[in-house]
Amino acid sequence: MINYPNGKKTRSQLPLLENNRSNKSNLGQSLEDDVNASNAYYIVNNLALVHKKPTPITVVNVDFPKRSAARITEAYYQLPSTTDYNGIVRGVPIDFEAKQTKNKTRLSMSLIHSHQLKHLKSVLTHGGFSFLIIRFTFFSETYLLPYQLIDEYISTKDKKSIPYIWIKENGYLIPSKLLIPCDYLSVLNKVLFKGV
Amino acid sequence: MINYPNGKKTRSQLPLLENNRSNKSNLGQSLEDDVNASNAYYIVNNLALVHKKPTPITVVNVDFPKRSAARITEAYYQLPSTTDYNGIVRGVPIDFEAKQTKNKTRLSMSLIHSHQLKHLKSVLTHGGFSFLIIRFTFFSETYLLPYQLIDEYISTKDKKSIPYIWIKENGYLIPSKLLIPCDYLSVLNKVLFKGV
Repeated sequence: MINYPNGKKTRSQLPLLENNRSNKSNLGQSLEDDVNASNAYYIVNNLALVHKKPTPITVVNVDFPKRSAARITEAYYQLPSTTDYNGIVRGVPIDFEAKQTKNKTRLSMSLIHSHQLKHLKSVLTHGGFSFLIIRFTFFSETYLLPYQLIDEYISTKDKKSIPYIWIKENGYLIPSKLLIPCDYLSVLNKVLFKGV
Repeated sequence: MINYPNGKKTRSQLPLLENNRSNKSNLGQSLEDDVNASNAYYIVNNLALVHKKPTPITVVNVDFPKRSAARITEAYYQLPSTTDYNGIVRGVPIDFEAKQTKNKTRLSMSLIHSHQLKHLKSVLTHGGFSFLIIRFTFFSETYLLPYQLIDEYISTKDKKSIPYIWIKENGYLIPSKLLIPCDYLSVLNKVLFKGV
């Protein structure tokens, strides 16, 4: 390999899959973009199979100007009845919702619909692993919070919000890498498979 | 229990969960309606957690006549990149597509998009169980076909279509019951869990 004369490392020398990249990277991207990019990486590299579900829309009127292309002319957004993401990691069904907040001190539970919390609980009941991915944009930190922890907190302490400091202490910081801006799989590998 | 004087059985005496109800029932309903009704029954009774994914739609224009209600005024249907249904059965990730055909002799593989077949294969690779639910409307028969069987058939025999008779011999006939018009879970219980 040829190094550049200025002694700087070429991209291929950078340890891509190490956690040395700051969690503060990709400031310009939304959490959704980061999760989608990470899922694309996982699929291409056969590491996991996770997709974002389409946004549920109620179609009221459709025009057929040509036989080939139906054009929807009136439709409305529905409240989602489940979460945005689900899939499979090494045979384990996973299901999660990803949310970002500008709040510096707490995660308001109003960000997550009650039927989504109910769905996350059902996933757990049926033998899957469910969680939230929460980004605190002020700190540029993204955490994975297993649903079980959330359930314990909101049923015993406060059902309206979870403090940032509690999430920092009990959740798992998700690393950000060059091609995997929200590498939640590295956390799942530790939590679900104990790093195996 | 009081029998009616005419000696006919009351509804509660009918063995609801037995396979004695003909597979030919619910002729008026579409397969999709039947699968959705069955999923609703499974969820309410905590037997499985399976949802239909929303139809993917690309939104081009949105009006905001009121702050509360966004109205989509131009949108188009997208080709689905995955299947219509996925979920969890006793910890096992499942994924399937449901199709009905009027053809009496064969299932044309053109009914299933190539990226959907690819997705079903990926589910298998990642440790889930994937399959097709195929209804031959002429015979009013609905079959569960594990993806593995389909893959073997289309890669060794004929990639364009699968004969009805082959499906009848190798697939699993799905029973129809009063509240579970497409009871594919009873088949999964036999195939995946050997009736346990």
